[in-house]
Amino acid sequence: MAVNGSAKQVEHQVSDLDLKVNLSETLKEIPPPETLTFGQTMTDHMLISTFHPSTGWSDPEIKSYGPLSLDPASSCFQYSTNVFEGMKAYIGPDGKPRLFRPTLNMARMTRSAGRVALPPFDTDELLKLIKKLVQLESRWIPRTKGYSLYVRPTIIGSRATLSVGPSDHAILYVICSPTGPYFRTGHKPVSLLAVDEHVRSWPGGTGGYKLALNYAPTLMPQQLAAKLGYDQCLWLLGEDKRVTEVGAMNFFVVVKRDDGDLDVITPPLDGTILPGVTRDSTLALVAAHPSRTVLPNLPASTKLYAREHQLTMHELAELAQQDRLLEAFGVGTAAVVAGVGRIGFQGKDINLPPHESGLGPIGRALYDRIVDIQEGKFEWEGWSVVCDLE
Amino acid sequence: MAVNGSAKQVEHQVSDLDLKVNLSETLKEIPPPETLTFGQTMTDHMLISTFHPSTGWSDPEIKSYGPLSLDPASSCFQYSTNVFEGMKAYIGPDGKPRLFRPTLNMARMTRSAGRVALPPFDTDELLKLIKKLVQLESRWIPRTKGYSLYVRPTIIGSRATLSVGPSDHAILYVICSPTGPYFRTGHKPVSLLAVDEHVRSWPGGTGGYKLALNYAPTLMPQQLAAKLGYDQCLWLLGEDKRVTEVGAMNFFVVVKRDDGDLDVITPPLDGTILPGVTRDSTLALVAAHPSRTVLPNLPASTKLYAREHQLTMHELAELAQQDRLLEAFGVGTAAVVAGVGRIGFQGKDINLPPHESGLGPIGRALYDRIVDIQEGKFEWEGWSVVCDLE
Repeated sequence: MAVNGSAKQVEHQVSDLDLKVNLSETLKEIPPPETLTFGQTMTDHMLISTFHPSTGWSDPEIKSYGPLSLDPASSCFQYSTNVFEGMKAYIGPDGKPRLFRPTLNMARMTRSAGRVALPPFDTDELLKLIKKLVQLESRWIPRTKGYSLYVRPTIIGSRATLSVGPSDHAILYVICSPTGPYFRTGHKPVSLLAVDEHVRSWPGGTGGYKLALNYAPTLMPQQLAAKLGYDQCLWLLGEDKRVTEVGAMNFFVVVKRDDGDLDVITPPLDGTILPGVTRDSTLALVAAHPSRTVLPNLPASTKLYAREHQLTMHELAELAQQDRLLEAFGVGTAAVVAGVGRIGFQGKDINLPPHESGLGPIGRALYDRIVDIQEGKFEWEGWSVVCDLE
Repeated sequence: MAVNGSAKQVEHQVSDLDLKVNLSETLKEIPPPETLTFGQTMTDHMLISTFHPSTGWSDPEIKSYGPLSLDPASSCFQYSTNVFEGMKAYIGPDGKPRLFRPTLNMARMTRSAGRVALPPFDTDELLKLIKKLVQLESRWIPRTKGYSLYVRPTIIGSRATLSVGPSDHAILYVICSPTGPYFRTGHKPVSLLAVDEHVRSWPGGTGGYKLALNYAPTLMPQQLAAKLGYDQCLWLLGEDKRVTEVGAMNFFVVVKRDDGDLDVITPPLDGTILPGVTRDSTLALVAAHPSRTVLPNLPASTKLYAREHQLTMHELAELAQQDRLLEAFGVGTAAVVAGVGRIGFQGKDINLPPHESGLGPIGRALYDRIVDIQEGKFEWEGWSVVCDLE
């Protein structure tokens, strides 16, 4: 196909392109950090590049944040050819902005774009451009613990015809939004309604990709859960009611083993689960404790085992009844770690042991360690990447 | 929730609003019908109305076709809160434009919008506005058999925040595109590749709704099918490899029964199948033959039975082997009826009996009758609705 041919031709040209920087003449006033609501305030600038089938990606440009102009027949409206990523930038003790494991986001974005037949792009080049944008916008990163600059790379299909087909035109853009901690008043545990009438993801579906289209179907079930007094949906799948995700986060439980040690369990990446960066980081840190690092405020004598295992509602209820279900939490870029207080299913609630701070010791230890790594206060495996441009 | 409250308040206000008509000063030149490619040429005007949570839907406006301006954080880009409909307008023998069963599209659009938590709208009012737009654009409807004006009502969420939630801002618009017959050079049978690695829809998913998000996941599998020499994907679901849809059409087969009569079979509306207007029309016409109407060029002695039944690949292969699988076709607004020549599955092809015109007698009879009804040449149950405004 012509689309693929031409996309391939330009795939590696992006790095040769010049970045145009057109800074805003007047800059916005930065609101006090405590007034920030997630995703509502945008910074002064955005990064943008457009893809044309014959000329490939245009010179990327950093310019004033502003509206996009699109033909009403565009693929992004009509057929949801849209992918995005969620990243966060922090200010390190050295005063320099940092990103958290950004190459994982770049790799996932490539996979996501391929799944909906969007043109490929140079991830190394895009990461350089994102670093440049974060540097330029670094005055927007609040210097307060738990605050960060949320970075949202997005690609939308802009092919303007109503026939169903791969979008051979696209717009790649990156926008930034300063954000506070997900839970403003400490960690309040969330309540979950386990939902099996509506199904978020399915084997052979797109749940394992970061696509805009995975989110719209969750909004109405989320409204139903809210009406019943629950904060989020716990998504189930199949006859055996196995758990996939919680809201838009990966789901974890902490289970006491027969030998007294602890299993930290999350569903495996079977295609129905988003391969989350925080999920991967959580599994890695759990596996490293205590042999390679001791997590904050956990005794080195507590052994943790990272397990990827399909959890069913039946199993969760049984573990709770045996007092072996010690903690449940969701993990993701926005909240980092969000503790779960109860899980409603078929008219009954599974209650998790309450903790004064809203997070149990394992969830709390992971939260503290991950945030410390993100903010450059604890060095771990090069996960925190300084936005220094060569 | 505030969103729902305010949406409800304005739900029935749309009919009180005035339509603003701002016609283009210069009109486009209409291309020769034979040069039209589906969905590429747009007419002069579009209909548009915007939803604001505090003021509801704005006065609808018919104005020059042109780009939409949207915040990069908009819900339609980030979370795929997008629905659409596909309708066709024809010129009847009386010279007046007509729509085909438009109330079914309006009802489906309401269901689709609710599924992705978009604000409700007044379908009666929208249909009046569409009729007005079609009247204004009627010079674009080719007067040639098989040609029509494709009408695409769309609603996109325009809430400009990155937090995941129902879009309390929206844009409703209707665009029109003149179009020729799907198969320009007569009916060429399409080849299908049965796909079970990628799944289009699943129980508890959104396959039964007309959502933009159902389409992006089909593009990459469609490219794979094309590489293997097949025109379209035949979507399968589950261990028993049951058929859901073909491309973006509903799937039908004609099967010889033991008693020599014919079953016309399509999968039931179990939530994984789009409730297609052409699907419904096909079932109704099959059920009406021969007792209430005799379909074109079919003997009245041929008895047809309309059946909704879950078809598996195993069953299709078995019926083909027994020489009982007489025809297979997809039905939908764009193609009306598209004959199937072969179905590839697990390295083998199921071949359908060839027909000189590409469609077998049942598919051909249905195509001819439906197009005659659509073009106002055969009156049936009020299906063809004249765009006469009171």
